[in-house]
Amino acid sequence: MPRILVINPNTTVAVTDLVAEWARALAGSGVEIVPVTGRFGARYITSRATAAIAAHAALDALAEHVAGCDAVFLACFGDPGLLALKELSPVPVIGMAEASCHLACLLGRRFSIVTGGERWRPMLEEFVAELGLSGRLAGIRAVAPTGGEIARDPDAALALLAEQCSACATADGTDIVVLGGAGLAGLAERIAPSVPIPVLCSVEAGLRATLAAAHLQAGKARLGSAAPAVAAVETVGLSEALAQSLLAGGIAPP
Amino acid sequence: MPRILVINPNTTVAVTDLVAEWARALAGSGVEIVPVTGRFGARYITSRATAAIAAHAALDALAEHVAGCDAVFLACFGDPGLLALKELSPVPVIGMAEASCHLACLLGRRFSIVTGGERWRPMLEEFVAELGLSGRLAGIRAVAPTGGEIARDPDAALALLAEQCSACATADGTDIVVLGGAGLAGLAERIAPSVPIPVLCSVEAGLRATLAAAHLQAGKARLGSAAPAVAAVETVGLSEALAQSLLAGGIAPP
Amino acid sequence: MPRILVINPNTTVAVTDLVAEWARALAGSGVEIVPVTGRFGARYITSRATAAIAAHAALDALAEHVAGCDAVFLACFGDPGLLALKELSPVPVIGMAEASCHLACLLGRRFSIVTGGERWRPMLEEFVAELGLSGRLAGIRAVAPTGGEIARDPDAALALLAEQCSACATADGTDIVVLGGAGLAGLAERIAPSVPIPVLCSVEAGLRATLAAAHLQAGKARLGSAAPAVAAVETVGLSEALAQSLLAGGIAPP
Amino acid sequence: MPRILVINPNTTVAVTDLVAEWARALAGSGVEIVPVTGRFGARYITSRATAAIAAHAALDALAEHVAGCDAVFLACFGDPGLLALKELSPVPVIGMAEASCHLACLLGRRFSIVTGGERWRPMLEEFVAELGLSGRLAGIRAVAPTGGEIARDPDAALALLAEQCSACATADGTDIVVLGGAGLAGLAERIAPSVPIPVLCSVEAGLRATLAAAHLQAGKARLGSAAPAVAAVETVGLSEALAQSLLAGGIAPP
Amino acid sequence: MPRILVINPNTTVAVTDLVAEWARALAGSGVEIVPVTGRFGARYITSRATAAIAAHAALDALAEHVAGCDAVFLACFGDPGLLALKELSPVPVIGMAEASCHLACLLGRRFSIVTGGERWRPMLEEFVAELGLSGRLAGIRAVAPTGGEIARDPDAALALLAEQCSACATADGTDIVVLGGAGLAGLAERIAPSVPIPVLCSVEAGLRATLAAAHLQAGKARLGSAAPAVAAVETVGLSEALAQSLLAGGIAPP
Amino acid sequence: MPRILVINPNTTVAVTDLVAEWARALAGSGVEIVPVTGRFGARYITSRATAAIAAHAALDALAEHVAGCDAVFLACFGDPGLLALKELSPVPVIGMAEASCHLACLLGRRFSIVTGGERWRPMLEEFVAELGLSGRLAGIRAVAPTGGEIARDPDAALALLAEQCSACATADGTDIVVLGGAGLAGLAERIAPSVPIPVLCSVEAGLRATLAAAHLQAGKARLGSAAPAVAAVETVGLSEALAQSLLAGGIAPP
Repeated sequence: MPRILVINPNTTVAVTDLVAEWARALAGSGVEIVPVTGRFGARYITSRATAAIAAHAALDALAEHVAGCDAVFLACFGDPGLLALKELSPVPVIGMAEASCHLACLLGRRFSIVTGGERWRPMLEEFVAELGLSGRLAGIRAVAPTGGEIARDPDAALALLAEQCSACATADGTDIVVLGGAGLAGLAERIAPSVPIPVLCSVEAGLRATLAAAHLQAGKARLGSAAPAVAAVETVGLSEALAQSLLAGGIAPP
Repeated sequence: MPRILVINPNTTVAVTDLVAEWARALAGSGVEIVPVTGRFGARYITSRATAAIAAHAALDALAEHVAGCDAVFLACFGDPGLLALKELSPVPVIGMAEASCHLACLLGRRFSIVTGGERWRPMLEEFVAELGLSGRLAGIRAVAPTGGEIARDPDAALALLAEQCSACATADGTDIVVLGGAGLAGLAERIAPSVPIPVLCSVEAGLRATLAAAHLQAGKARLGSAAPAVAAVETVGLSEALAQSLLAGGIAPP
Repeated sequence: MPRILVINPNTTVAVTDLVAEWARALAGSGVEIVPVTGRFGARYITSRATAAIAAHAALDALAEHVAGCDAVFLACFGDPGLLALKELSPVPVIGMAEASCHLACLLGRRFSIVTGGERWRPMLEEFVAELGLSGRLAGIRAVAPTGGEIARDPDAALALLAEQCSACATADGTDIVVLGGAGLAGLAERIAPSVPIPVLCSVEAGLRATLAAAHLQAGKARLGSAAPAVAAVETVGLSEALAQSLLAGGIAPP
Repeated sequence: MPRILVINPNTTVAVTDLVAEWARALAGSGVEIVPVTGRFGARYITSRATAAIAAHAALDALAEHVAGCDAVFLACFGDPGLLALKELSPVPVIGMAEASCHLACLLGRRFSIVTGGERWRPMLEEFVAELGLSGRLAGIRAVAPTGGEIARDPDAALALLAEQCSACATADGTDIVVLGGAGLAGLAERIAPSVPIPVLCSVEAGLRATLAAAHLQAGKARLGSAAPAVAAVETVGLSEALAQSLLAGGIAPP
Repeated sequence: MPRILVINPNTTVAVTDLVAEWARALAGSGVEIVPVTGRFGARYITSRATAAIAAHAALDALAEHVAGCDAVFLACFGDPGLLALKELSPVPVIGMAEASCHLACLLGRRFSIVTGGERWRPMLEEFVAELGLSGRLAGIRAVAPTGGEIARDPDAALALLAEQCSACATADGTDIVVLGGAGLAGLAERIAPSVPIPVLCSVEAGLRATLAAAHLQAGKARLGSAAPAVAAVETVGLSEALAQSLLAGGIAPP
Repeated sequence: MPRILVINPNTTVAVTDLVAEWARALAGSGVEIVPVTGRFGARYITSRATAAIAAHAALDALAEHVAGCDAVFLACFGDPGLLALKELSPVPVIGMAEASCHLACLLGRRFSIVTGGERWRPMLEEFVAELGLSGRLAGIRAVAPTGGEIARDPDAALALLAEQCSACATADGTDIVVLGGAGLAGLAERIAPSVPIPVLCSVEAGLRATLAAAHLQAGKARLGSAAPAVAAVETVGLSEALAQSLLAGGIAPP
């Protein structure tokens, strides 16, 4: 039975619980979901600074909890620390935003993103550029309430989110829209009926991609930039698990 | 139980059977695989001209067989007619090459492709560019035997393919290599032990992505360039099913 | 006396006749125009699916009629099957859209396209990207009537086309506009007086470029991706001429 | 009878004569060729500094000689002052390098350039990038002798040029090679037999494109960045014709 | 004490004086400013043609005046002849526009440009593309009065410039705006209070970058495309200093 | 007197001291250098994981020490946390690598990077892409010893570094090479004599750019993505200074 480590790199347990609940419902009984919440950092990630801290928190969580897992789902739309996690992890790490973008590309020629928190728009534009997918992106629309605020009161945000998703189709000419954010889990299916193009839930996209990655059993590169770092790196002031992982030049495969 | 239409757009039934066998083994008993072979065109696709004809043959097969299916797997690495199929189809169509490239991007920062048939190298470079993924591509290595020839005698090609996959890592600096081609189904796991980076089987990648798409139930766009064409288009000389589909401006959803 | 094969890959003889008439008028008495109409497919090409079928029909026409010709003019704006035709043909093949775009680049820093049929906008955006000319493109404006409808009643469309051409200048900041479509032959000179920038007729641009290609006598590559495919490819269900051409790995030069 | 102004922006009359001779042979008796040589600057253009001066010299020649001409052929491979000439000129100006690159794109998927003078390689890479055609360029090979030196003793350079043209095919994977340089007029047909891909003469390509532009009669934009500058610009120290042209905000159309 | 040659490549001494005054104020007493005005060309540069002539004038000024200087500041926003000057000069040459763009990139993620003279917008878009910085550019806004006109009556333009700078922030989403133009020296600090993002004075940016370059003492390349041209180039009709520099294949380092 | 905060985001005081010493020597007596070392993380940054942790450490240092400073110099070549620091900081933050790349672009058409630690090559390729400068980059050569190892025994690395810098010129065709790394401070001038192109010291480039930024006094954006985040963000487990800064939505300007 595959075990999926779900890392919520912010420090709000309620968001971790929300994602874990949806992940368990989608994955079914044949998959074990292991959720973990960041030990330090912001309650919800809304800026570059809080995302940078979350990258450290995600590495901290990975080092502590990845043993025995078959794949890792980084459950924050924006994927803080994604490449560092892939480097350190002995099993595949799939980010919520990267999975959503790549799956959206399989389902439409051009995709859009709707998310919560206005600071995310430039950050996600850069993220999509790093994926190499800027040419497929029709646009990003970020509503004012953050994902954390939407998670606390989803009903209040539904109309606004549906309006922005529809505008992606009517004004931006996109084929499919990603509704991005851990805190927005489950809202895609509620707004889909009023949107003339498909609406992709980022939590479901991330989970489906992580399961596919677990099935593919692609293994860890033994060479190149995706291979574990081989040199011992001494550190100070980190958690014991993370310090050990870095000292060992990576975490041993299961 | 999801039904997956597997279109082999060349005219060799043995290749269809090979892909169907692997698809059934990977998908398990909870998925129905509906394989279909192109009615006209080349025995194996090895050039731009044969790929162009295969696009027509794939549309022909879709119109005849898609009714009652939940998703379509276009099982030719190079995805002839991909966007036309997506336009006409009432359910998601996933190409073997696009799925392999997008999943490879989730598993490595840079990916390479190894395939059979030297004419495919420039064709696949252009295909990857159309996906928007040129920036993620480390290189394409095409061995001289075509996929059709490899399918007929896989043992003869194993060493050559393994050598090229290893060269992707040692000479091109890639993180993961896609072993592309319907006729190469099942060879990835045989050569993986001798290659220092993960080797992705394009048949498995295509199938996993198609299953994910079937699960996501993203639906068909009612607006935009991915929506069915609405105007009646009269045709001459086509199969009745394809003529009817075009006359109706698309195929009705299930 | 150079002979130019003019392939209309749709199945409407009236459009073939219209293009042939203009081609003869422009080329003068020193050039022989050999027009041919697609044997199967849509009456007018308005979507990705009909374009994919037209690519096959164009190959079918080429194999049957290219013998004795010095160059081929693919007379559909969007150039279905262009690269496959270039691969198979023993003489240069020039597409109406590629010729228009490249000549427009010689006449202005940024160019726009106005054409008929709304589905063509994303298709042409991708086509221009494949040419590598996206950076020169100021925009594409597609009016609702298709090229086929405009060909049947050009007077009804003149004002709309002129308005869109002018908008390319005033709103999109372009230097020159291509009026694209076989069915729009001859309309450029009628609307030019009311447009503040040059209006390029795609039929004339295509013909001028084809004549230039015929004069240049550049010959067929004997090496590389533009050389004929050398391997025999068996096929089923194709016209005898096309089947023979593929079996021979290309068509012998004149 | 169309009149074509051929501007050689360097100061070597022998090169002007060579280009004019070829132009007359290619254009036939129905076209009048009006050659002009730069009044100041380098004997042959071999660097950025000499190219910058040649841009001024070309403007100077245009202002003095364009009256009564239907199109202008800027006969230096590298096209010094191209956009400035297009801005100032009342009739189309076609550069030898831009014409060669665009026509090469119609005749092959990827093109290469072989030219004389090592300083031209980075300059032409930037020029091709400005055209937006970097994605179509397979490479540039510049031999040590400059175009001026090759013009003085073409036989001595033939073997070297043929070797580089062949290397474009065998090592760089290109489809067609442009033999670039006014001083190399006529050498393409001499080396073509020993090169496995087509070799395009830049003088012929430039002339064919200029004739096509003259035929198209696209006219001068009355709006936008290609329109004449409308404001009076006072100058000092320029030739009377150029000063008058700038003071008038452009040269009046014929 | 570093000596900075400030080249104003237009022919208006008042603009040279304005730039020199600001340069001296900013650089302080430890730097010697050597201003020089173009000997020929337009009073103010407002078009491609006048910019092309200014490139020659700048080379002419360099050859005459660079001896004994440690760095060169090309004080025209648009940097006519920039790469040619860098090639010929024995010491670093820094253009006002390139310096402004690169420093703006250090101070904001995306930058905009506001300048005088409507013809500059497409010219600067191309210039930024040549720098490779198009991805960082949020937009260019060119007001109708030219830089020369603004220099003669700055008070009349202040409100218009401030309005456009603010629009860069509110409408274009930029982080920092460059106020570009030698004639606009000193206006940035006057309009900054009314603009919600930083306003960078191009004269100050250019000077700061030139001083940094003088300090870095990076030296002249002895190899590659930035090295002096080594071959003797004969010329006609140029100033003696420029002719000598070209004949010597570059100007000897101090 | 300007005060420059120099943040070394690794945890090796000796590297901080080395950078501070060079910074003081270069800046002269009119500038106060305030060096600070990361409180936690790796001894030297050699991988994506250690860089991600360093981003947090740099934010931690900024929050604690920026008060009273005029600009910040992030003294690690690779600039961990750069955009997050710019977001949070009330004064300009300049990264060592971004400064080096932008100044190199002012001094050469194409630049290369030589640095220590093989994992840095792909990381820096991505960093340069994020700057938008990939088109200016000729290549990156990373020697096996890390910057930390080179700092401990620079004499042992000199020959290797000089060899790689020379290869940038002779094999990669670059115009200027950046010798990157805090631990390599001062080595550029030692190897420059044996390298045929300019060698730029990243510590000096970073310092010169930081001083220029301090002089420009561009101020903090009050709008857009570079403005401080305005919403209060609660955090757990961070240093008091950093927690306070995030709770306040940024650090107040001096």
